[in-house]
Amino acid sequence: MPARTKNSKTIRCAIVGASGYAGLETLRLLSGHPSAKIVFATSNTYKGRAVKDVFPGSGAPAGLKYAPHLEAADFKGADVFFLALPHGESFGIIESLLVSGKVVDISADFRLRDAAAYPAWYGFDHPMPKLLRKAVYGLTELYGDKVSGADFVANPGCYPTSVALALAPLRRMRASCGAPVICDSKSGYSGAGRSLKPHLLFCEATDEFTAYNVVGHRHTSEMIQETAATFGKAVPVLFTPHLIPVSRGILSTIYVPLVKNASVDAVRKIYADFYREKPFVAVGPGDLIPSVKRVLGTNMCHINVFVDAPNRTLKIFSAIDNLVKGAAGQAIQNMNLMFGLPETTGLPTVPLMP
Amino acid sequence: MPARTKNSKTIRCAIVGASGYAGLETLRLLSGHPSAKIVFATSNTYKGRAVKDVFPGSGAPAGLKYAPHLEAADFKGADVFFLALPHGESFGIIESLLVSGKVVDISADFRLRDAAAYPAWYGFDHPMPKLLRKAVYGLTELYGDKVSGADFVANPGCYPTSVALALAPLRRMRASCGAPVICDSKSGYSGAGRSLKPHLLFCEATDEFTAYNVVGHRHTSEMIQETAATFGKAVPVLFTPHLIPVSRGILSTIYVPLVKNASVDAVRKIYADFYREKPFVAVGPGDLIPSVKRVLGTNMCHINVFVDAPNRTLKIFSAIDNLVKGAAGQAIQNMNLMFGLPETTGLPTVPLMP
Amino acid sequence: MPARTKNSKTIRCAIVGASGYAGLETLRLLSGHPSAKIVFATSNTYKGRAVKDVFPGSGAPAGLKYAPHLEAADFKGADVFFLALPHGESFGIIESLLVSGKVVDISADFRLRDAAAYPAWYGFDHPMPKLLRKAVYGLTELYGDKVSGADFVANPGCYPTSVALALAPLRRMRASCGAPVICDSKSGYSGAGRSLKPHLLFCEATDEFTAYNVVGHRHTSEMIQETAATFGKAVPVLFTPHLIPVSRGILSTIYVPLVKNASVDAVRKIYADFYREKPFVAVGPGDLIPSVKRVLGTNMCHINVFVDAPNRTLKIFSAIDNLVKGAAGQAIQNMNLMFGLPETTGLPTVPLMP
Amino acid sequence: MPARTKNSKTIRCAIVGASGYAGLETLRLLSGHPSAKIVFATSNTYKGRAVKDVFPGSGAPAGLKYAPHLEAADFKGADVFFLALPHGESFGIIESLLVSGKVVDISADFRLRDAAAYPAWYGFDHPMPKLLRKAVYGLTELYGDKVSGADFVANPGCYPTSVALALAPLRRMRASCGAPVICDSKSGYSGAGRSLKPHLLFCEATDEFTAYNVVGHRHTSEMIQETAATFGKAVPVLFTPHLIPVSRGILSTIYVPLVKNASVDAVRKIYADFYREKPFVAVGPGDLIPSVKRVLGTNMCHINVFVDAPNRTLKIFSAIDNLVKGAAGQAIQNMNLMFGLPETTGLPTVPLMP
Repeated sequence: MPARTKNSKTIRCAIVGASGYAGLETLRLLSGHPSAKIVFATSNTYKGRAVKDVFPGSGAPAGLKYAPHLEAADFKGADVFFLALPHGESFGIIESLLVSGKVVDISADFRLRDAAAYPAWYGFDHPMPKLLRKAVYGLTELYGDKVSGADFVANPGCYPTSVALALAPLRRMRASCGAPVICDSKSGYSGAGRSLKPHLLFCEATDEFTAYNVVGHRHTSEMIQETAATFGKAVPVLFTPHLIPVSRGILSTIYVPLVKNASVDAVRKIYADFYREKPFVAVGPGDLIPSVKRVLGTNMCHINVFVDAPNRTLKIFSAIDNLVKGAAGQAIQNMNLMFGLPETTGLPTVPLMP
Repeated sequence: MPARTKNSKTIRCAIVGASGYAGLETLRLLSGHPSAKIVFATSNTYKGRAVKDVFPGSGAPAGLKYAPHLEAADFKGADVFFLALPHGESFGIIESLLVSGKVVDISADFRLRDAAAYPAWYGFDHPMPKLLRKAVYGLTELYGDKVSGADFVANPGCYPTSVALALAPLRRMRASCGAPVICDSKSGYSGAGRSLKPHLLFCEATDEFTAYNVVGHRHTSEMIQETAATFGKAVPVLFTPHLIPVSRGILSTIYVPLVKNASVDAVRKIYADFYREKPFVAVGPGDLIPSVKRVLGTNMCHINVFVDAPNRTLKIFSAIDNLVKGAAGQAIQNMNLMFGLPETTGLPTVPLMP
Repeated sequence: MPARTKNSKTIRCAIVGASGYAGLETLRLLSGHPSAKIVFATSNTYKGRAVKDVFPGSGAPAGLKYAPHLEAADFKGADVFFLALPHGESFGIIESLLVSGKVVDISADFRLRDAAAYPAWYGFDHPMPKLLRKAVYGLTELYGDKVSGADFVANPGCYPTSVALALAPLRRMRASCGAPVICDSKSGYSGAGRSLKPHLLFCEATDEFTAYNVVGHRHTSEMIQETAATFGKAVPVLFTPHLIPVSRGILSTIYVPLVKNASVDAVRKIYADFYREKPFVAVGPGDLIPSVKRVLGTNMCHINVFVDAPNRTLKIFSAIDNLVKGAAGQAIQNMNLMFGLPETTGLPTVPLMP
Repeated sequence: MPARTKNSKTIRCAIVGASGYAGLETLRLLSGHPSAKIVFATSNTYKGRAVKDVFPGSGAPAGLKYAPHLEAADFKGADVFFLALPHGESFGIIESLLVSGKVVDISADFRLRDAAAYPAWYGFDHPMPKLLRKAVYGLTELYGDKVSGADFVANPGCYPTSVALALAPLRRMRASCGAPVICDSKSGYSGAGRSLKPHLLFCEATDEFTAYNVVGHRHTSEMIQETAATFGKAVPVLFTPHLIPVSRGILSTIYVPLVKNASVDAVRKIYADFYREKPFVAVGPGDLIPSVKRVLGTNMCHINVFVDAPNRTLKIFSAIDNLVKGAAGQAIQNMNLMFGLPETTGLPTVPLMP
C-alpha cells in the first residue's frame, strides 16, 4: 500500500459490488464516516448510472457513477477496496487490488484458513492457496491484533460472527464444555441478498417463518473453524438457519452441553470479563435476552448466557445486525484498525427505536 | 354451452393462468366450493408439473398437472373457464373457450364497454369489438341480473370494484353530488402480482409505503365508466393508488363534494337501503370505519360514509380483499349466478382474526 | 351429558372466555361448522355487549351477548362448553359445567396427568386431583380413541402439540434415539394473548425477534410428559420459545441425537406410515421444510425430518397454526370425536396464500 | 436564559417526558449530537429507575435516572428543555422552565397562534394566552429566522409538518390554486404513541390498514393555520389520517385544484427553487415519488408534485419520519438554531436501507 495514506486524514474507499445489500450498507456507513471518502463503486447491473439515481437514499456522493466490476483492477485512486461480490467472483481482480491498496473482502473466498475445506463446503478448489494464507480472518474482537497490521482481511460471514462471538469466552472454561454445539440461527431477509426469487417476494415472506439449507449450510465450515479455535480441538457443530420476516438481524440460539455444572453468575462473569474492553459487544445486563431490534442498524453484538441446570446445558443468545456487524460494519471496523483509527470511528451503536 | 351441466350437480372448472395470485386464489376458493370440481389448470412457467408440488398449500386436487396456456383452447371437459392471464393474452383462445363452456375473464380485456377506450388506457386497439359488446361486466351487486343469464363475464378490476361499490348508492342522491370524485386507494402487494421485481422484494416493501402510477393508472378508465353509470353523466375521476405493506386488501378513501348539504344519517340510510339484499356488502354499522383486516380472505365489501359538513364533502371508505372480492371471489360469485346457484355458495365471509 | 343431543343434528356450543384470541378463534371456526350452533359466550371485560358489536369480524351470530364468566355455571342449554379462560380460573365452575354438558378445556388446568407436577410448573397445588384423573389429554392424533368416549377433554398447549406430534413416530425407533431432546420453538404473537403489555405493541414487535422464558417455560412440563410416553421412559427435554413478528404460527425445530445411524428415507417412512390415516398431519413431501404460512388458518400439522449424518442427529421440523391446531381447531377436532362426527368436520385445511 | 451557554460548547439538555416515543427519539438523537449532553429526563411511569435499565437501546448516558415530571420545574442545570408531555400537561411547569433555560415544546399546547382555536379543536380554553403569543411556531424551513432568536418554540405536529412543507411553495403561485385542499395522510403506528390499547397490539395492527378520526382530527387546526399563511387567506382543508402497519413514517397525498393550468415542470421548478437552500427538504428528483422508507430515521422531508392535467389538479406527495422531522428531529433542528449552531448538526439524512 502506498505510504501517502499513512499521513493523510482521508481514507479513499472503493466498493466493488455496490448494488447488493452488503455493498450498499458499506456505502451507507462510509457516507457517515468522518475519515472516509467514497471514490469508486462498481455494479455490473447498473454500470454507467449515477449511484444516487439508482439508490436515492444510499448516501452516495453526488457524481459517483457505477463502473463495471472489472474496472476495479485498473483503478489506482483508492486506499482500500471493499469487495462485496458474490462468492468466487473476486479471484480475477484481487491481486491487482492488493497492489493498489488494502483490501477487505466481504465474500467467503478467503475466510477458511484451510484451503482443503473449500471443495467440500464451497464446491471448488481454491485457486489461490498462497494468498489465502496471507488473509487475516477479520473477526475483529478476536483477531484485532492481526488486523491492525494487515493489508488483506477476509471479513467473516454473518451467521459465523454471531456464533463465534457467542462462544469465544468459553475458551476460559473449556474443561466444563461438551459437545455437540447446536446453533439454531434466525436471520432477516437481507441475508438472502437482493436477488429476484419468488420466496423473497414480500407476499411470500410476510407472515412466514421457515428454515432452509438445514443440513450442510456453507457457513457451518466457518463455525467449525472458529469453534475449534475456541475449544482447542475439533468439536462437532450443528447449524440450522431460519428466515424471520424482518429486513435485518440475526439471533442465534446456541446450546452447549456442560460436562461440569457451572453457575449462571460464574459463566456470565467470564463473558463480561472477556468482552470488558470490547466496545461493540455487550453482555446482558442481568437476564436481558438479546433481540434483533436492539441492535438494528448498529455494529453491536448483544450476548447473554443462561444455564439450564437440570439439563446441564448452556443456552447462549447472540444478536447482531447481519448487514452491520455481520458484514459492512465489521468491514469498516477492520478498516479502522488497518488504518490506525480508533476501532469505533463512524460506527453506530444506538439502534432505531421503535 | 352444452346443456348437460344444467342438470348436473358438479361444475367442472378450468383455470387458465393458475400460477399467479389471482389464479391461485381461484383455485383455493374453488377447492372449498361444494359444487365445483377443478379439472384443468394452466401455467407456462410450470407446465408439466403437478400443481400440488409447485404450490403445496394451494388446495389443488391430487393429480392435477399444469398444461401450457394454449392447450386450454383444445380442452373440452370444462363447464366454465376462469381466465387469469396477463392483460391482452387471452384474445387468441377466448373464442375457442366460449364454444366449450362459459367464461369468466379476470383480466381487463373485456371490461370497458367502449372499445374506443382501449387505445387511450391500454395502448392497443381492441381486436374483438364484437365480442366486447357481448361481455357482461361482472360487478355482481350492480349487474347481477345480466350475469345470471350470461355465458361470458368480464370480472371487474380490484380498485374499480372497491370504488364502484362505494359510489353506487349515490345514484339515489345524484342531485346532491358534485365533482370531481377523488379516489385515494391503498392496496396490498398481491395486487402487483407474483412478478420478480426489486420493489416487490420483502426487504424493499416491509416498513415502506408509497404511491405509484399516480397519473393515468389504467383502472381509472373502469372507474370513469362506472361513475358515469352512477351519476348518469360523465364525471371527472382522480385516482391515486398506493402500496401498503400487507399481502391482501384494498382500502379506498373517496371524496365526493356535496352541492347540497346532507346529513350523515340520511346518507347512511340510502347506503343501507341500497345494499339491504346484498349478502357481500356491509354498511357501517354506526361509525365503524372499514379496514382491510376485517375483510381478509373474504368476499365481503365493507363500506361506510361520513359527512365533512363544514367542507360539504362526503368521505366514503370501502374495504375489500383484492384477491377475493377484487378478483377470484367475485369471479366465483359470478359463476354461481351463471350456473343458477345461490350467490353465496362456497364464498367465505368471516375473516381470519387476528 | 343429557341424552337428547345424541340424536340431534346440532351441537349447541358455549364458549367460556370468548374475548381472548383462543376463544375468538373457537367462535370463528364454530361459525363455519355445519353441526355447531353457538348459544352462549362469556367475557368479563365486555359483559352485556353484543359480541358482533365488540368484534364485527368474528362470525358471532346476531343476538349473541357476552355473559360474565360465572354465569356459565348456571347455563343449561349447551351440549359442550369450550373453556378458554386464563389458567387456574376454571376450577370454580368446571364441575357445574360437567353436569350440564361435555367440556373441552383449552387452558392448562387439566393437561398434566400427574397432579404432583402442578406445584413445580404452575405454582399451585392442583385443587381437583380426582377430576384431573378423569380428563382425557386431547392430542387427537395420539389419543383419539379415548377422546371418542370422553365427556371431559384437556386440550393440549400450542407448543406441546407441535413438539409431541413431531416426536410421536419415534416410538417406532426408540432404540435409535438418545437424549436430550432440544426443542427450539418460534411462535407468532397471538400465542401471547390479547393482553395489553408494551412488548406486544406493534411498534415494539415489528422488526423484532427474540426469545423469552428461556429456562423453565411451563409448557416444558407437557413436553416432558408426552416425550416420556413416546420413548417409554423419562427423557430430558430442553425448550426455548421465541417470538416471530407474525400473528399466527409455530415452527418447532427439534434436535434428537441418534445412538444408531438411520437413513433419512427410513426415518421418513416411519413418519409417513405413522400418520398415514391422520388427515391433519402431513409429512414432507420430499425435502419440503414445514412453514408457518403453509398452515395459516388451518388445522394442519406439517412435519419433516432430516438426518445430520456426520453429527448423528435428527432435525425435525413441525409447523402448526397456534390458534387452530394449537388451540381452537384441535378443540373442535376433539368435539367432533366426542359427538361422533367425522374428525374433519368444519375444520379448514387450505391456508390463505399469499 | 443564562448567558453562559452562549460561549459554552456543550448544550445541557433536559427531556421532560422521556419514556414515550417522541421523548425517547429526542434522547436517541441527542445521544449522537456532538454538542448536546443529556443531563435530565423525566417519566412518571418509571421514576427512580435508570433510563438504560428501562430502555437498554436508547442511547441514554450511564447514570441518568428518571425523575418525575414535576421535578423539572426545580431543575436548574439545563440550557434547554424538550417537552414531550401529553397535550395539556405542561402548563403547570412551563413558566418555571423558561426561567431556567430555553424550551422546545413538542406537544400541541402552543402551536395555534390564535387562542380562540383551542376550545374548538382541543376542548379547553387556553390558560396562558400571553405566553402563547410569545411562542415561535417551529416549522424550521418556514420560520427559521424567528426560531434563531427564540427562547420558546412550539414544535409542529407530525401531520401538519408533512402538509405545510408540501404546500408552502404554492405561495409563489397562489393565483393558480383553488380550494378545497384535501390531505389524505398515512402514518406509522409510532404516531399513536406508546399507549396500551388493543388496536395498537401487533396482532391487531399487522396485516391491517384503516383510517381513524376521519372528521375533525385536531391536527386539522394546524393545517388550516399554515395553509392560510401559504395562500394569504383562509382556505378549506380536509384531512383524513390512516394507519400503516409500519413503525415510522408519514406519507401525505395532497390534492389542490388548479384554477389555471400549470405545467409539471413549471411547478416543480417553483418547488425546487423554494427549497434550494434547505438541507432537509428534497424535491423529486424527476418523477420519483416520496416514500416513508427513504426518509426512515432521518430528518428529511421528501416532496414531489404531479399535475393531473385533464382534471386540473395538483397531486403533491410528502414523506417524513414522524418521530424525526415530525417531532424530535425538528425539535433538535430548532435547538440548533436557537443556540447558534449549524441547522444540520447531529441530524441524520441517510436512511436505513433496506
